[in-house]
This record gives sequence, structure tokens and C-alpha cells, in this order.
Amino acid sequence: MTDETAAQTAIIVGAGKGLSASLARRLAREGFRVALVARDVDKLAPLVAETGGRAYAADAQNAPAIEGVFAEVDKAFGPPDLVVFNASMRYRGPVEVLDPADVMEAYSVGAFAGFLTAQAATRRMLARGQGSLFFTGATASVKAMPHSVPFAMAKFALRALAQGLARELGPRGIHVAHFILDGGIASSWATAGEPGPADKWLDPDAIAETYLSVHRQHRSAWTCELDLRPWVEKF
Amino acid sequence: MTDETAAQTAIIVGAGKGLSASLARRLAREGFRVALVARDVDKLAPLVAETGGRAYAADAQNAPAIEGVFAEVDKAFGPPDLVVFNASMRYRGPVEVLDPADVMEAYSVGAFAGFLTAQAATRRMLARGQGSLFFTGATASVKAMPHSVPFAMAKFALRALAQGLARELGPRGIHVAHFILDGGIASSWATAGEPGPADKWLDPDAIAETYLSVHRQHRSAWTCELDLRPWVEKF
Amino acid sequence: MTDETAAQTAIIVGAGKGLSASLARRLAREGFRVALVARDVDKLAPLVAETGGRAYAADAQNAPAIEGVFAEVDKAFGPPDLVVFNASMRYRGPVEVLDPADVMEAYSVGAFAGFLTAQAATRRMLARGQGSLFFTGATASVKAMPHSVPFAMAKFALRALAQGLARELGPRGIHVAHFILDGGIASSWATAGEPGPADKWLDPDAIAETYLSVHRQHRSAWTCELDLRPWVEKF
Amino acid sequence: MTDETAAQTAIIVGAGKGLSASLARRLAREGFRVALVARDVDKLAPLVAETGGRAYAADAQNAPAIEGVFAEVDKAFGPPDLVVFNASMRYRGPVEVLDPADVMEAYSVGAFAGFLTAQAATRRMLARGQGSLFFTGATASVKAMPHSVPFAMAKFALRALAQGLARELGPRGIHVAHFILDGGIASSWATAGEPGPADKWLDPDAIAETYLSVHRQHRSAWTCELDLRPWVEKF
Repeated sequence: MTDETAAQTAIIVGAGKGLSASLARRLAREGFRVALVARDVDKLAPLVAETGGRAYAADAQNAPAIEGVFAEVDKAFGPPDLVVFNASMRYRGPVEVLDPADVMEAYSVGAFAGFLTAQAATRRMLARGQGSLFFTGATASVKAMPHSVPFAMAKFALRALAQGLARELGPRGIHVAHFILDGGIASSWATAGEPGPADKWLDPDAIAETYLSVHRQHRSAWTCELDLRPWVEKF
Repeated sequence: MTDETAAQTAIIVGAGKGLSASLARRLAREGFRVALVARDVDKLAPLVAETGGRAYAADAQNAPAIEGVFAEVDKAFGPPDLVVFNASMRYRGPVEVLDPADVMEAYSVGAFAGFLTAQAATRRMLARGQGSLFFTGATASVKAMPHSVPFAMAKFALRALAQGLARELGPRGIHVAHFILDGGIASSWATAGEPGPADKWLDPDAIAETYLSVHRQHRSAWTCELDLRPWVEKF
Repeated sequence: MTDETAAQTAIIVGAGKGLSASLARRLAREGFRVALVARDVDKLAPLVAETGGRAYAADAQNAPAIEGVFAEVDKAFGPPDLVVFNASMRYRGPVEVLDPADVMEAYSVGAFAGFLTAQAATRRMLARGQGSLFFTGATASVKAMPHSVPFAMAKFALRALAQGLARELGPRGIHVAHFILDGGIASSWATAGEPGPADKWLDPDAIAETYLSVHRQHRSAWTCELDLRPWVEKF
Repeated sequence: MTDETAAQTAIIVGAGKGLSASLARRLAREGFRVALVARDVDKLAPLVAETGGRAYAADAQNAPAIEGVFAEVDKAFGPPDLVVFNASMRYRGPVEVLDPADVMEAYSVGAFAGFLTAQAATRRMLARGQGSLFFTGATASVKAMPHSVPFAMAKFALRALAQGLARELGPRGIHVAHFILDGGIASSWATAGEPGPADKWLDPDAIAETYLSVHRQHRSAWTCELDLRPWVEKF
């Protein structure tokens, strides 16, 4: 719940194609100034041009780097009204052959970077007593599957972060929410060329619509967690 | 996801003050034709007048009665696009002194009537391959508290109904969702005269807004379950 | 946690073949006096002979009937140290064709009878400040599957009963626990003649062993809920 | 489920006072050869003497170190039948003031070390097609509380590890289980000098008894997750 008369600032961490792009477009259409944070920002040039936003190169696993980006956004756009953490990294394999370095990296990218993002966001939002802090989860946030232990460890941890912060920050005016995306996202590598109706995959524009609705909820009735799933998805 | 160019039909079962009234008003403002179902419809007269809807007297625990109401609504407004089940009844007490008849009634009103409503709704929605079927839950849907066994038994069962139907009916085009209202609703008996800010209670208008957003979700990204909670609520 | 020097009394409600028989045998071997409650007790004659227990004919959906059985057991064996509720009834089918009477019966047998059993057991256990009250759950206690709504509604409700009573009765000395049997039980109708290793199904003797272990837990470390699943089971 | 005629080998990682000591004593009494792994093994001397076990100094966050310990235990005691991961580290504070290094350390000690332990254990257990791999959880494994985000992130991740491995390794003969200790452990720093009955805290001997029962479960009916809680605990 924020003042919707003035332009709002959104920061998307872990920006790429798919959901982040849909979010950036949808928010820009509503008048948001959108900051996109990624390790590689070259790929974001078209999206920046389209949305009138800005891209910031930073490794979200690095505390000074992410704090530095938020400080730059403060100057360029003002403090954030909405921060979305989208980053993740997936390693698969039987437990006995996984590389421990990969397990740690999956956590660092998918959960620790979420903590650093939350910390930078929270410091700014607490000063104003408002703001939304959203985390993008997956099926693996609530169900750990065989051969996917590194991803599930990170996603469970990210859910713990969201849930703990919701309890901690809600009464201080910050809306923390966790979105469980229970299905493949259309146009991602996982779904291209698959048979069946197009809407058998999560449409990133449709997901973005729900993120916006949740951001606009009145604080008397905030959602902390919801799932999003294509109509034909087995679960 | 339904055709939003034509007027839609909504049926609210277990209609009274509070959430049902807010829903009726919000839907009417969007052009919905709203049917309100309750055992006692006299109290609904002002709401009917305000929303241009209709009230139907029926005991939702009675299969022919609820089927009869849906048949009447078919004729008056056309088949339902959105059906919301809101009924519940709360009995409290230590297990050793509860009256078994009350335990059964809490279930019959709060869960069995939900099944009957779902059955009447589903038969109509399956014929068109679309429609939304929403169930109103509570804290007790996921956490059974001492001295509140009858209410929790009904609310857990209602959640089972919603979850099973979501799996069964999603791939047939029907959006089933369960809303966990984790807090007292403002202006209800439980909250009147309590100290603190007004938005420490769930505002029924805010809840209604989220119900409408979920009804409007594209079927590529449907929510099956979400919670709603005031910002200051402990959980 | 009970005095293990004196013979203990156990009551099994919903007794039949399978788990109830294994429980009766295992408890008898430990010196328990075992009371078996079922609608049809003729089939229990061999088990009664083998365990030295007693069988009581009663419909557990009927409050005076179940209270009457507990009063008889008081006289025959003394108050119960362990009560296990095992009854359930399964109806399957698409929601639009289910018979509402079946939906209600599934609840009445599988959950309401559990409440009546709990009430009769609790009244006796509270007088002594001790006793164990166990409920047998299923996969459907935590996951509602398509075409199985009646069973899931009852099983979710039974879990609510167990959880609420654990919170209510634990501090009064009664150990309430819920066992999620996540797989088919060997030698039941569902598993006979299936290919694969015998231990791909839940062995009722193995289940009984865990029930006994949980009954013997010290009250400083009670289990409220656990799952039991064959090693090869998908979940 | 293992051959109980021969002496079994147990490895406890993150050994200290409290639960680890109770486990070591209980297992030694059953004839297990017990290996205790901790960063500081000097403190373990009395326990080693009492149980006839061995202590190994290693930082469980270090892959070669933990693999080295398992290799030494292979030679001294033979391959492990039971491995218990007990390590954790708790940092508390509001999100805006937490030190990111502490957040990472809480994860590294409490979850990543659990992965490394699982990997070393699994390699040995897969060769024999049997073994038990147990993880010690806490309230924070399923509920993230305010000001306790680092601990909850690690505990949620550890639960993901246990759940994913249970699915992955069960059909390969390894019993993976997760124990949710929902309460303070008696004689730990948190509980000393508190008023009330002694059994208001989790008795580590009572917990150890349940770990042993679960290790002895037949593979046709394995528990993957259970909670343990003092009778008077609020939850």
C-alpha cells in the first residue's frame, strides 16, 4: 500500500528474460521507474530502452555491490516502493556426485543474495514505514525432489527468509510476500517447442499481473504467500 | 478467466454482513449480476437493493435446496461465472463437554454445504468449460487450536475440498481457489470496540478486491491458495 | 508415558484385519488387555481368541453406543491407557456425480466417529492425567487428490481433531498423535497379487511397532505427527 | 533396517553436550561403535571414555575434512550404519543490522555441512544398499520467526536436504529422516534455572530413544519426518 499518485520506484534483482522482463514492462506501463540489476546488463539494453528504466551491473551475492546499487537508485529514482528478488541457479545430480562448490553457489545466488537484497531494501523502506519486498519461489520452495537438492536447499531457505521477514517487517509497514511459481515459465528454455496449448506454461505477463495486484493490496489484508500454476499443471 | 465483455453472474453462498456484502458491492460495481444465498434473506434486503442483485432463501446443507437455487439463478441471470462459498459456524469448548450435535452441525454448515455448493456450481461450469469456485478459509484451515475442534474439523475439510477440486477441475477449465483469512474481519462482532488502528482488522472491502483479482487471473497462472492478514497480525 | 508395571488397557476403534489385528497382537504380547470395537464383531472372533481380548459391537458414529462400550471396558479391563481410532470409509468419483449421502457418510465414519471416540477416551484419561490417543491418517490427510474428495475431507478433518486435541490435552497429560500412513497396507485388498517385493507395501506389523514406540515415549519428548511409508514409495 | 546381530557403527556430526551425548550413550549401550565428530574434541574426552567410542576433530563445513573423517571411521569401525547430523549455529537480530558474514556462517554450519555429511555417508551406504541418515531440525525448520532469519534459512535448507534425499535414497535402501525438535533441550544453556517441572524441556535421553526406534524401523514402514515436543509446550 503506497501513495499511487506519485511515480513509484521498483528494483528487480536477478533480471533477465521471462518474468523480470514482463514485470519491468508492466510496472513501466503503470508509471513505475524501474531499476534492473543483473551481473550482465548488456542483454538488458532493449528492455531498458523499452521501459525507460535503468540497468545496474552487480553481483547480488556481494553485500557492498548490492548496497551500492541501491544507493545509486536512491539518487536516480528515489527510494524503492517495490523490490523483487528473482535470482536463482539450478544444479542437478545424484547426491553422491554433486560438486559441493555448486551446492554452495546455488545457495549463494538463490538465497544469500536474497538476504542481501532484503537488507538493502529494508533499510530504505523502514525509514519510510512502507514498501513491498517480494521473493520469487518455485515448486522446490515447498517440495524437494530427487536429484535437485542444491536448488531445493536454496529455495526452502529463501522461503524462510520471506516468512521470517513477513513476521518481522509487517508490523513495521513493509509488505513481504513469497510467490510459489509451480510450473515452467513460457518462453523459457524449459518450455520452448513443447507440444500442447500455449497456456500450459506460466505466462510471465500473467504472473506480473498478480505481482502488481499483491503490491497494491491494502495493508489491512496483505498476502504473505500464494501459488501460481497453469490450469493443466499436475500438483 | 472469463469473457469480460458480457455481464457475469456471481453466486455468494452463506451471505451476510461483512465479506459477503463487500463482495456483492464490489462485483456489482464491475457489472456482475449477484445472487445472494442465505437461510434468512430478510436481512439482505438493503444489500439486494443496493447491488441490484437477488436474494435466495435456502439452507445450503440441503442438496435439493441448493440445486434449486442454482437452477433459479440460471433462469434469472444465466450460469455462474463465479461462485463463492462463505458459510461457517463456530462452536467452542473443551472436548469433554462439547455437544456432538454441535460438532456435526459445524461440519454440515461449514464443509458439507461447501461440497453441495461445489457440486451445483461444477455441473454448470463444466458445461461451459470455465468458471471460478472460491472457498473462504480461516486460520483454523491450517492450524487447529485448543477448544476449537469443531470449527477446525470443518475448515480443514473445506480446504481438502478446495484442494482436491483444484486438482480435479483445473484441467477442465474451472479455477478453484481457497482464501485463508488469518485475522478478524473489521466490523464483525469479534472486532467492534477493540482498541488500536482500524486497519488492524481485515477490511472486507480489501478482501473483496483480492477475490476479484484472483477471479480475473489468466488460466496460465492461477492461484490455488493464498493467505490474507492484517499488517500487524501475529502469525 | 504410563506405568508399565501394571497391565495396560488398549481400545482399538474401527477394528478389522490389517493394522488393527497387528496392533492387537503386538499389544497383547506386551501384556495389554485389548478391547476391539467394530460394527461387525463376528469376524473378530479368531483375533479375540488369539489375543485374549474382548470384542464390542458398536457403531462408532453413535455417541451413546461408543460411550457405552467405553463404560463396559472400564468394568472389564479398567480405564484405557491407549486408544487408537482406525475407522475410515472411502468413496471415489468425480465431484459432479458423487452422492451427497456418501460424502456425509465418509465424514461421519472417518472423522465424526473419531471425535466421539476422542470424547469418550478423554473423559477417562483426564481423570487420571494420562493416556495416549492415536489417530490413523493416510496420504489423503495432507494431500487431497482428484476424485477422492469425500475421503480427503474426512481425513483432513481427522487431522484437525488430532492437532487441536494435542494442543488442548498435552498440558493435561494426554498424548495425542496422528500417524500418516502414506502407502498401501500389505495384505489389504489394494495390494494382494501386486508384483514387486513384499516390502513395497506397508507391513501392518511394522506399523504397530511404531505405534507402540510412540505410546512409550516419555512426556518430555512426545511426537504429535509422523509419516510411515514403504522405502520404495513415491511421494 | 540393518543386521542387528553384528555391532553397528554410528557417526554423530556436530557432537557436543546434550542430544549428542545422550545419543552416544544410548547407542553404546546397544553395542554401537560410536564416532563423534566436532571441531573441538577435547571437551569430548569424558564421553569417549564412557562410550568406548572415538572422537574426530574436523570442521564439517570442509569437504575433504569430513570425507577424511569418514575414511578414518571406515578403517576403525567399518562403514556407518547410522549417521546423525546435529550441527547448527544461531545468530539473532533485526534484518537491517545482521552481519551478512554471520548469515552465511549460520548456513554453512547448519546446512552446507549437512550436505557434506550426507554425501560422505551416502557414498558408503549406497555401496551396501542400507543405512540410516538422520538430520536434527528445530521449530525453525518449519516456522521462521522474526529476528531469527539466519537460523531459519539454514534449518529450512536442512529440511529440504532431508526431504530430497529421502525421495532420492529411500528406493536405494537408505533411510533418511528429519526430526523436528520443537522445544528447548533440558540442561542446555536455554533451559538452566528456569522454573517449572523438569520435563517441561525436551529430555535428551528421551529424544535419543526415539532416534533409536526410528533407526530400527523396518523398511516397509519408514518415518521421514516427526516432531518431538514436551507435553506442556505451546505450539
